[in-house]
Formats: sequence, structure tokens, C-alpha cells
Amino acid sequence: MFEMILENIRSHSPLIHAITNHVTANDCANILLAIGASPIMAEDIREVEEITTLADGLCLNLGTLSEQKAKAMLLAGKRANALNHPVVFDPVGVGASRFRRDTAKLLLQEVKCCVIRGNLSEIQTLSQGSTPSRGVDSEQKITEENLAETVALAKAFSAQTGAVVAITGAIDVVADANTVYCIRNGHPMMGRVTGTGCQLSALTAAFVTANPGDPLKAAVAAVCVMGVAGELAYQRLKPLDGNATYRNYIIDAIFHLTSEQLEEGANYEVR
Amino acid sequence: MFEMILENIRSHSPLIHAITNHVTANDCANILLAIGASPIMAEDIREVEEITTLADGLCLNLGTLSEQKAKAMLLAGKRANALNHPVVFDPVGVGASRFRRDTAKLLLQEVKCCVIRGNLSEIQTLSQGSTPSRGVDSEQKITEENLAETVALAKAFSAQTGAVVAITGAIDVVADANTVYCIRNGHPMMGRVTGTGCQLSALTAAFVTANPGDPLKAAVAAVCVMGVAGELAYQRLKPLDGNATYRNYIIDAIFHLTSEQLEEGANYEVR
Amino acid sequence: MFEMILENIRSHSPLIHAITNHVTANDCANILLAIGASPIMAEDIREVEEITTLADGLCLNLGTLSEQKAKAMLLAGKRANALNHPVVFDPVGVGASRFRRDTAKLLLQEVKCCVIRGNLSEIQTLSQGSTPSRGVDSEQKITEENLAETVALAKAFSAQTGAVVAITGAIDVVADANTVYCIRNGHPMMGRVTGTGCQLSALTAAFVTANPGDPLKAAVAAVCVMGVAGELAYQRLKPLDGNATYRNYIIDAIFHLTSEQLEEGANYEVR
Repeated sequence: MFEMILENIRSHSPLIHAITNHVTANDCANILLAIGASPIMAEDIREVEEITTLADGLCLNLGTLSEQKAKAMLLAGKRANALNHPVVFDPVGVGASRFRRDTAKLLLQEVKCCVIRGNLSEIQTLSQGSTPSRGVDSEQKITEENLAETVALAKAFSAQTGAVVAITGAIDVVADANTVYCIRNGHPMMGRVTGTGCQLSALTAAFVTANPGDPLKAAVAAVCVMGVAGELAYQRLKPLDGNATYRNYIIDAIFHLTSEQLEEGANYEVR
Repeated sequence: MFEMILENIRSHSPLIHAITNHVTANDCANILLAIGASPIMAEDIREVEEITTLADGLCLNLGTLSEQKAKAMLLAGKRANALNHPVVFDPVGVGASRFRRDTAKLLLQEVKCCVIRGNLSEIQTLSQGSTPSRGVDSEQKITEENLAETVALAKAFSAQTGAVVAITGAIDVVADANTVYCIRNGHPMMGRVTGTGCQLSALTAAFVTANPGDPLKAAVAAVCVMGVAGELAYQRLKPLDGNATYRNYIIDAIFHLTSEQLEEGANYEVR
Repeated sequence: MFEMILENIRSHSPLIHAITNHVTANDCANILLAIGASPIMAEDIREVEEITTLADGLCLNLGTLSEQKAKAMLLAGKRANALNHPVVFDPVGVGASRFRRDTAKLLLQEVKCCVIRGNLSEIQTLSQGSTPSRGVDSEQKITEENLAETVALAKAFSAQTGAVVAITGAIDVVADANTVYCIRNGHPMMGRVTGTGCQLSALTAAFVTANPGDPLKAAVAAVCVMGVAGELAYQRLKPLDGNATYRNYIIDAIFHLTSEQLEEGANYEVR
């Protein structure tokens, strides 16, 4: 179903402005280069609006948040909206502090997001103002048992925000207000590599920017690409390879991924 | 001697709040995931106390210090003390500037540390207020010649601070006020990978957090684990592999390390 | 022509103070260690002058600029000048915002640079105050067609600033006011690894610091080393290796690079 989605990134090479955390910024830049997009990182209020203007799409990530970065994300998000550039929002660890919750709330009020991507705890926090979660890794995991509930959450939160909502985990749920894709790709070992979620958000920004007509399908493609890359990378691992080598192989797999591999490997159902 | 020390990390998966430098933050996160712990990085004064509260242990690292980060470390350290969460302090390059010396002095006054880990120059600076060192790499190296003196320094500084003191280098000296372990593991090439010290401090936080009863033994285990991983990783290197591949293989080795490998590989003597 | 240039780095192990962006800081540190130098990163105004004093050379990089970092670079640059430590300036994405242009202008007014290294768009912006470029990747590429013009630009900008000017791309142009080297090394895939430019600037700082007599030749050597490493690393790639593995192999190649490989592999002409 993904037709020209990958080709559109590689032929247009969208420039993605990422305001992201410093823990995973390098991986986010390299995964954008791997898929055929270009990264630009800038987070000072003196320049983010200009950078957003030069870029084609914007990715906002709450990790290692600071007061300056919160202000910069707001400025950049508004400018992106004014220019009709898609905005992807990743509410990293939003349940972990009032500062992150307040920043996320303000951003959702002031910036129209094209895609919101987080784990189940993060999206629950955003949509329900629920109690603090434990760190950046989800305590609430998507399982077959809570899948119907998660699907309903994703649709409702999409209806509320107007954004495509991607809740990722062992199963990924990607939804707009009407249609939901449940995706079963990836490998549990991806949870042992820091920043695979951040990387997926950056990738998603490239996908929706290069494929403006259908953000739902573009977001589904991004999630499938990350999952298929996680599977291909896992197959390459030799007995002594651990999470550091796996991290490299995931990006390597994105670099080489073909449309055929994506179509063949993507494992999704529409609900 | 390490019995359940590794298993305790893998079964409890402690969440470690690391306020660390941005040069090596990604490696610190991935080495925590490799050993079976979870990382959370946050350094804004608006949120560090909440993050420390959610986490199980705290690692403070002086690299790429800023005024905000110095304040954040103080707040987080005090909160960790109030909650009885162990604090590991890594005085990166403390001899290199007055700002780092003053910050370290204040932290040691206000925060009770479980473990202080640094190289010989750093620990000398902390304990003696000695003259500026040259950068983050130790000019003063631990050798067989100065080992007795280094052992005495570690014990005295432990008696003074109440913390386990780990002075690492070609030989590692880990001490409380009464007992000292001298460890001969690792490989000189580890000095060609940036941040192996930072990574060891993050690891140590995971070890003492998951093994609250015996911080000395937990710190010794962390130092042995890093050293044994450095040896195993070195054995994997092929002729064209350099320090970048070595960096990955060290983390990979931590990922796969078994209790048996640790017991067999750990090379220490008690003094 | 490079005689003792590599050996001088490995025997003196210069300490390089890098005020650089957080996206590529880890790679800059590891490439400095690979070539035999030592990195120290510090960017707070409270300590940069002391750190610069302890170090042997300075590298200033405009990426992920902040107001604090702009001030820190100015302080560090002036101190380096006072101490006769070489300063390498990398105007990352200088065309992308007024903030970067103003900061670069002030730095060039107040700090005497030994080497200025950027891509064609960046050097055009610095020298001509030209219109905003697109992001950190050059829109203006060096080609055989514009080579004569680029050579003239490099010489003129060197005459204006007193610095060696390195304009890098598919062809690299390294010049002082009188002599120009055109270098044809490297591989296009280097453009798919984030921060190869930042890494080259850090490397260049090590080369000019350890070889104070001839900054032009030292800068040419650094550019050739990066290019030859890019070629050697490319030759190691297996079919599934992508840009993440390539990133590691480039640093690995620097680690093992011999003077013989450099002399044999360097492909330059003097104009």
C-alpha cells in the first residue's frame, strides 16, 4: 500500500528541523540521512523561526527539556503552522514531571500537530492528564488484552487534536479519527537501544513532509519502516553483538531499505 | 564473590537518573540498557527533583557543566539523599577550572555520595584541593610505584566523605575506610574511547542501586564488569577495527556478560 | 609531502578544546582520540578561558548555537589568541540564521583564526554576506565547473582574514593567500554521515596544533586524512552496511592510518 512513499523521501530529500534531546540527537540525524532526508538541529529562540522557515518539516521532542527549549519549540511550532509545514510531536517522558506536562499542554494548545507519537503511558498522560509515569519507558504496554482500548484511545485523541496519533510498543497503533492501523513489526530488543522512539519520530517527520497528501498512511509507513528495519537488523546480529551493534544495524537497514522490503515486511491490519 | 550482583540489576531493572555531559550521554544511556537498567536524563531545575523521585538511583557528572546543571545536580542530589537513593558522583575534569572545583566542593558538602568515581588527578583535586590538572584525562596515573599511596588516598578520602571511593586507571583502586580492592582488568585501548569513565560511573549507579546492602562490593563489581567487558571487546577486534568499533563492542560485551564471565574474569586483590 | 605531520600529533598528543554542537560532539571526541590527540569539551563562560589555557588548541563550531555558547566562543577565542594557541573555526550553517551570521561576524572581527573550514555556501556567506542558505548542507557544491571561482574565493578570503581557508565538498580547496591545494579524496557517502564536517574541523585543530610551523600544510594533511579515511572505510563496507557502520569505520580508519597510507592515498594538486 505504500507505493511511492519511500521514493518521495529519497527524491525530495526533505530538510527536517529537529528540536530534540541531546541524548539521541546524533542518531536522529543519522536516521534522517539514512532514509534520504536531511537534518538540521537548532534550538535557540534567536534562530528557530528562521530555521523552521528554511526547513520543510518540524520534529519537536520533549527529552532533556529546558525553559529555552520549551520556548523555542513553541516559536518553531507556530511558524511551521503558519507555513503549513507538518509538525511531529514526541512527548518523551511527559508523565515524568509537571514541567513536561505543562509544556506539552501548551504546545498542543498553540501548535497544530500533524502527528503525535509516543508510548502508551505518554499518550494516556497527554489525553487524560493521568498520574506521573515512571521515566521515559512505558509502564503501560500495548498488549493483545488492552489493544481494543488502545485503539479507542488513539481514535479519540486523534479526533480531539486533529493529529494522526501513533502509539508505539510491542504492537503499534496508528490512527486518525476514523481509521486505525495495528502494526506488528519490530523486535523486543529495540527497547534495549536508547532513542528508538526519538528516531521513529524524526523519521515520521520525514515521511509526512515528503508525502503531504496522506499523513495517516505516511505515519503508518514510518512505523512499519522502523519495525521492518528492527527485524532486518536483528537478523544480522552475530552471537557477540549486543545493543550497540544493533543500534548501528537498525540505521544501516533504513539506509538500504527498498519499497519491496517494506511492502513485503510490513505487517498491519486496518481496524 | 559477586553472587547475585548482576542478577539483581537484571531482575530489578533500576531506573537511573543521570545528569551527565552531552558528549557521552548516549553511551551512558546505552550501557545502562546493556546491563539491564533503564536511563532517564533530565537536567532542568524545573524537573530534576521529580525525576529523581521517580528514579531509583542518581548519577552526577561534571562534564560540560553549566550554571543550570550545577544547580540541578544540587537539587537532585539533596532529593536523592532525602529518599535514600544512592548517589554516584563523577568529578570529570574537576581540576580543569575553578567552576568545576567550586561546584564539586558544594556538592560534596551538601550531598551524601554513595560512590565517588574518578581518575587519580580528579580524586587528588577533590581531596587535596590540588593545583589544576590537564584536561579530563589524568596526568597522574596509577602505577605499581604509587599504588600504596593511591590506596591510602582512597581510604582516607572514603573516611572523610563516607563514600566508597573508586580511583580508576591502569590499576583500579576501590575503597571504603577499611577495605581496599585493587583491580587489574581492562585494556589500555579503553583510553582511546571517549567517555568510558562516564559510562563506568553510570554503570556503578546501576550496581549500587540494585544492590543496596553492600556498596563497596557493588562498586567493585561495576569496575570489574567494565574491565572484563573491555577485555572481551578487545579480543573481538579485527585488524581494521579501531576505537569506534571498540566503543560498540564494549557495550555489546556488557549486554551479554554473564555472572560466570565476571567471576572468572575479575582480577582483584583485597588490601 | 606530509613527513612528520601525523607523527607530531601522535607524539605530542595535543589537547584540543572543542566548543561544538551536541549532535556530533561524541564523534568529534572519538576522532580526536583516533588520530592521537585528546579532547576536552567545555562551553560555560565560567570556565572556558581556563580550559582554553589548559588546552593546546581550540575548535569553535557554530552548530546548536546558544547565546551562552556564542559568548563562550568569543572568550575562548580571545584567550587562545593571547596564548598563541591555534583556533579553527567551523561556521556550521552560518547562512541559516541572522544569529549565526552575527555571531560569526563578531568572532571573525575579534578572534584571529588559524583555519576557517566550511562548505562552499558557508564560506560564501562569511565572505560575501550572501543570502540565507538551506540548512547545514551546502546548496552550492564545488564542481569542476566552479573550481576556478572557488579557488579564487578561498585565496581572497584567506588574504582578508589571514586564516588558512578550507572549503570542503566533492573537491576540497585549501588555501592561504598565495597557494591553493585542490584535493580529490573522500567518498560521496560521507555526506550521509552526520558531522563529518565537524569531525574534520576537530581533526584540523589537532593537525595545526601539533604542527605549528606550517598551518597550510597541516590543514591540507587533515583534509587528506579525512578523505583517505573515507575511502578506506568505504572499501570495508559489506552489502548490508549503511551509514551507521560507515560512521564507525571512518573513525576506525583514522585510528589505524599510517603516514604511508596518507602519502599514497592523498590526491591533491597545487594551484
